[in-house]
Amino acid sequence: MNAGLKPGQEHFRFFPLHKKDTNKTIHTVDTILKIAVIGLGRIGQIHLAALKTFKNIKITAVSDISPELAKWTAAEYQIPHFYTNYQDIFQQKDIDAVWICSPTSYHLAQVKEALDSNKYIFCEKPLDKDSNNIQSLIDIYPDLNHRLMVGFNRRFDPDFAAVKASLKKIGKPTIIKITSRDPFPPTAEYTRASGGIYNDMSIHDLDMARFISESEAEQVIAVGSKNYTDDTDTTLITIKFKNGIICNIDNSRKASYGYDQRLEILGDKGMISVENKKINHLTFYSENSLESSVLEPFFLERYKDSYIEEIKAFITSIQEKKEFPSTGEDALKASILADACEKSLEQKKIIFL
Amino acid sequence: MNAGLKPGQEHFRFFPLHKKDTNKTIHTVDTILKIAVIGLGRIGQIHLAALKTFKNIKITAVSDISPELAKWTAAEYQIPHFYTNYQDIFQQKDIDAVWICSPTSYHLAQVKEALDSNKYIFCEKPLDKDSNNIQSLIDIYPDLNHRLMVGFNRRFDPDFAAVKASLKKIGKPTIIKITSRDPFPPTAEYTRASGGIYNDMSIHDLDMARFISESEAEQVIAVGSKNYTDDTDTTLITIKFKNGIICNIDNSRKASYGYDQRLEILGDKGMISVENKKINHLTFYSENSLESSVLEPFFLERYKDSYIEEIKAFITSIQEKKEFPSTGEDALKASILADACEKSLEQKKIIFL
Amino acid sequence: MNAGLKPGQEHFRFFPLHKKDTNKTIHTVDTILKIAVIGLGRIGQIHLAALKTFKNIKITAVSDISPELAKWTAAEYQIPHFYTNYQDIFQQKDIDAVWICSPTSYHLAQVKEALDSNKYIFCEKPLDKDSNNIQSLIDIYPDLNHRLMVGFNRRFDPDFAAVKASLKKIGKPTIIKITSRDPFPPTAEYTRASGGIYNDMSIHDLDMARFISESEAEQVIAVGSKNYTDDTDTTLITIKFKNGIICNIDNSRKASYGYDQRLEILGDKGMISVENKKINHLTFYSENSLESSVLEPFFLERYKDSYIEEIKAFITSIQEKKEFPSTGEDALKASILADACEKSLEQKKIIFL
Amino acid sequence: MNAGLKPGQEHFRFFPLHKKDTNKTIHTVDTILKIAVIGLGRIGQIHLAALKTFKNIKITAVSDISPELAKWTAAEYQIPHFYTNYQDIFQQKDIDAVWICSPTSYHLAQVKEALDSNKYIFCEKPLDKDSNNIQSLIDIYPDLNHRLMVGFNRRFDPDFAAVKASLKKIGKPTIIKITSRDPFPPTAEYTRASGGIYNDMSIHDLDMARFISESEAEQVIAVGSKNYTDDTDTTLITIKFKNGIICNIDNSRKASYGYDQRLEILGDKGMISVENKKINHLTFYSENSLESSVLEPFFLERYKDSYIEEIKAFITSIQEKKEFPSTGEDALKASILADACEKSLEQKKIIFL
Repeated sequence: MNAGLKPGQEHFRFFPLHKKDTNKTIHTVDTILKIAVIGLGRIGQIHLAALKTFKNIKITAVSDISPELAKWTAAEYQIPHFYTNYQDIFQQKDIDAVWICSPTSYHLAQVKEALDSNKYIFCEKPLDKDSNNIQSLIDIYPDLNHRLMVGFNRRFDPDFAAVKASLKKIGKPTIIKITSRDPFPPTAEYTRASGGIYNDMSIHDLDMARFISESEAEQVIAVGSKNYTDDTDTTLITIKFKNGIICNIDNSRKASYGYDQRLEILGDKGMISVENKKINHLTFYSENSLESSVLEPFFLERYKDSYIEEIKAFITSIQEKKEFPSTGEDALKASILADACEKSLEQKKIIFL
Repeated sequence: MNAGLKPGQEHFRFFPLHKKDTNKTIHTVDTILKIAVIGLGRIGQIHLAALKTFKNIKITAVSDISPELAKWTAAEYQIPHFYTNYQDIFQQKDIDAVWICSPTSYHLAQVKEALDSNKYIFCEKPLDKDSNNIQSLIDIYPDLNHRLMVGFNRRFDPDFAAVKASLKKIGKPTIIKITSRDPFPPTAEYTRASGGIYNDMSIHDLDMARFISESEAEQVIAVGSKNYTDDTDTTLITIKFKNGIICNIDNSRKASYGYDQRLEILGDKGMISVENKKINHLTFYSENSLESSVLEPFFLERYKDSYIEEIKAFITSIQEKKEFPSTGEDALKASILADACEKSLEQKKIIFL
Repeated sequence: MNAGLKPGQEHFRFFPLHKKDTNKTIHTVDTILKIAVIGLGRIGQIHLAALKTFKNIKITAVSDISPELAKWTAAEYQIPHFYTNYQDIFQQKDIDAVWICSPTSYHLAQVKEALDSNKYIFCEKPLDKDSNNIQSLIDIYPDLNHRLMVGFNRRFDPDFAAVKASLKKIGKPTIIKITSRDPFPPTAEYTRASGGIYNDMSIHDLDMARFISESEAEQVIAVGSKNYTDDTDTTLITIKFKNGIICNIDNSRKASYGYDQRLEILGDKGMISVENKKINHLTFYSENSLESSVLEPFFLERYKDSYIEEIKAFITSIQEKKEFPSTGEDALKASILADACEKSLEQKKIIFL
Repeated sequence: MNAGLKPGQEHFRFFPLHKKDTNKTIHTVDTILKIAVIGLGRIGQIHLAALKTFKNIKITAVSDISPELAKWTAAEYQIPHFYTNYQDIFQQKDIDAVWICSPTSYHLAQVKEALDSNKYIFCEKPLDKDSNNIQSLIDIYPDLNHRLMVGFNRRFDPDFAAVKASLKKIGKPTIIKITSRDPFPPTAEYTRASGGIYNDMSIHDLDMARFISESEAEQVIAVGSKNYTDDTDTTLITIKFKNGIICNIDNSRKASYGYDQRLEILGDKGMISVENKKINHLTFYSENSLESSVLEPFFLERYKDSYIEEIKAFITSIQEKKEFPSTGEDALKASILADACEKSLEQKKIIFL
């Protein structure tokens, strides 16, 4: 269908790049933003690749404790400055915002320095392992929700965002069910350092439960088992929210068939569900079974779009001078829930909040 | 799962950018290629956006008969040179390859000039409306298959490519069925200029039928009807291939539920099918029905990945000095089939090839 | 949910057998009908089992040329009379209706004798191999449509009947696609005796095409191949109907994954499709694929309900003194289409009707 | 495919009624069994209709406290004897087995009388509201498992039975999830009499959890809410089994989209799930959504086959002189779990068993 029209006509009819961002490969935002990325490990690279698709975002600097990684990344993405000391970034007056993608133990200190350097901040979750420290941060910076966005990226996944937008279709919600299972268990080393399944893995689902229920937890119960590691790697969490919604989360460190990410909400007028994404759309019909592809392998593929949408939401909030859509307060609440799960598992009782 | 590891370790463990292109947002190829794009209408913009995600491709120049469009595009993508006369591009010695995205009537002349300027060429389909002209081109340039790739992008769609790769699972193929329906009929002006449904729309499916059957047509029959325009807009094509496979293609200029793109192949040991992609993965369970989302709206979304894979295939063929995977010869064969369909419809008889 | 209510209350609240036939296991009709079944082979047994679930139908006699089979069947179903000569049935004055389930070559003679004995008749398709003979029958008995129902059972399948009832949802139909594939090829002996794929197998689909299109064919084209037998066992049929609808039927004598029965109708306002039934509703998620069950094995299972609904339609027509919903005329039209397919295949040309 | 073969041949080739029960409409068992049904309310009628499809089962007598209902039922099914006093049934020496379908409060007394009259017994669940009474019954009759089968019909549903049979495919099970939601809430009167959601509704799922886990519960937690009635009508149950499996059950008295019945089991080598059955297999593709049919309306339709299979299992156990597949012991265990749920909800704590 590309023949026979003058290019200009065709262009303006079908592909209105000037007006609307219909091109899914390269993204446009109105504001030109100068940014820096701190921490260039896996999640840092994910954010860099996503940021690079925005034409009006200029990545001015990166930093990592590994000089090779910092240098290689700068070259790979044609970024003018690279550092091993992240504090060099805060010296640069012309940087508007920083992406904090370092290990969790650095988050809080870096966030504070960034706030004091007057940068907008995107910080990966968890903000800190200790919810008391998050509480302190909130206490010190009263305008924090306008300055710091925390990376609960699943809120920005197109599927989950569409659920949130259409919740009223099911009337009054009564049951929320969230499934979140990783494809394979992490290394023993990772597990030890991770802070446990609730703070490392369930925290995303606890945030999703708050996001969908639009309420706060009243009762939390967790049961679990150890199947792949010497730490709890399989768990069922039950939450009763203040508005009466009851919620079940199931997490497993292993789902051999891929990254299992589901959500369903029952209401008095119906149900909405989000089903898994498969790798492809083939079905093989054999003598014994109908075979289709396994699920997307892991979060990098499953939540690829969420990283793009998260950046858009970050920029929109700045432009419109409104609160970020996932804040330090959200980080605190999720952290408190994760701690309650841990306590429930250990003490074998219902935790009342 | 991003806490607790040193960034370097994490990076090399999970995100081996150096070795393999697992990052789906930004693409890497080994060769640095300098290219130019001719024709900046809808399809030209699609290719530009796809080309821009390749780090080692340098887009050196663009041209379009509209000076505004050429200038705007160059600015948008930071491309050094822009022209209104495409021949200026062939003067640039340092350009390795050109992307011909102009209207069909310009294709053949531009391809010849590009060949004579010693550029590699990617040309959008159809190569020409007249299959005799394509035949002449093939006769003149004996090494054409190493120099010219024609844009049958669906061959590179991950789903269809996966079918091709797994055909042996179903044994000997006996029936191929292809569905291809546009979401809405084009304007009367477009229809008139398009050369008719077979050369404009079915040609993709005729190429797919050859690609999957790995054979040439022996008999072609087309029946059709006019429902939305004063030209045939709904058609059933039947092909009998030399290897015995029988094939049905159904095309419609209108499918109100989205861009319907399906394929199935029956063999003596099973069946493989490619199902449609939906816009999202939600299901709404109401009192009266279970509702899920409609299909991807059109080719831009449905075949987004195919444009990326097509570029990879173009570059790989150059690197490995092998024939392009979709050639002038393929363009000729598809064009002959489209002409046979038209003849069958008009003359109400089976066309024997 | 069965505790605590008095049985009577509960019964009338939930299980209104008196008023509506909500019980799917045992069926009620208002008329008491005395019937006989002629021919106790496979299809005869299917009808017997279905008839036996109707409480108000009394099966008074059966006949088969095999005395053992006749005797065994009578004992199995507690039927008072059994014969080897079917004509004994027509002597019984108190029999209201006969089910003719004998081999095709007996159909026409038995139908005539039944008509002359003043019985209502249900006759299995095809009515006769020669469409001229069917035409003669129609000419002789002008009220035939009120006396003879022909067993195009798929019209009564709940899925296909639901499609028929909701056709207006898709606006003006433009394309009909029918898939009908048997699970395994028949024996050479069966194939020889069957009258060929069009009269034996496609005839159901040709009737379905007429049923859905509500029009008569104008052009018929068939192409085919021989993969499993020395007769055509794989075919694509294309029909252009007088109302402009174009239709594709694909048939294969072998689909290793089960009995493949699909229908889809595209209209200017949408599409309706009937998907296959699987044996069960399990999915197994393994490391390599998601596996679900194959399709229902064959027509006995897939169309089980259609035999029940067919009987209901037979009785309703008698009660309401209206034409049967599938008549001798339908048998004739389907037979003419099957002959046209055969002629198209042999002569390699489009057949105009 | 019924033409051209002699009926006898055809019959023995395709329809081996003598050897195997491939006919799904009418069922054959080897033993001739004389039975009676006590209680002719909704569930009694369901069992009667299922029993009636077995050729070798003779229903000799029925009883109900309503003389009209007893009389009507006897006439409807041509049953020789009907009573208003169930004890008349136990006087009949030639009755082999009784089906107890009366309200729960009668079950235990009738079971005891039937045992003392030396009948085999099929009794609907729950056996009694008080688990102590069930324990007493078990204590008194040591051979009870060979004499009494309790109607946990879902164990015999072909889908759930297939899951049970293929559990080893997923390795070691780690998580079981059961969803069971009724289409609409019962009347206030029913709710009051039902004994609460756990004993009335969850008891099926508690039995399923035991059936699949092949273990006994160690911890039970229930949370719930009241949305439609003044009793708990929505609940999440969490069970930790002795073998380490963790299990979640979600129940709701209302699912506006139909009778929602799902099961999934995660193991270290994969997952098995049972999905819902829809009313039909149609999809309507409109401009705004893809619509398919809602779920089977209620248990009568969804579990229709289970009642047939349950009867087969009852008979097979008698023939093979083995324990019934769902026993008084199973009834006791499920009842204890239901009580634990109730206690957990009331006392807001984890119940340890």
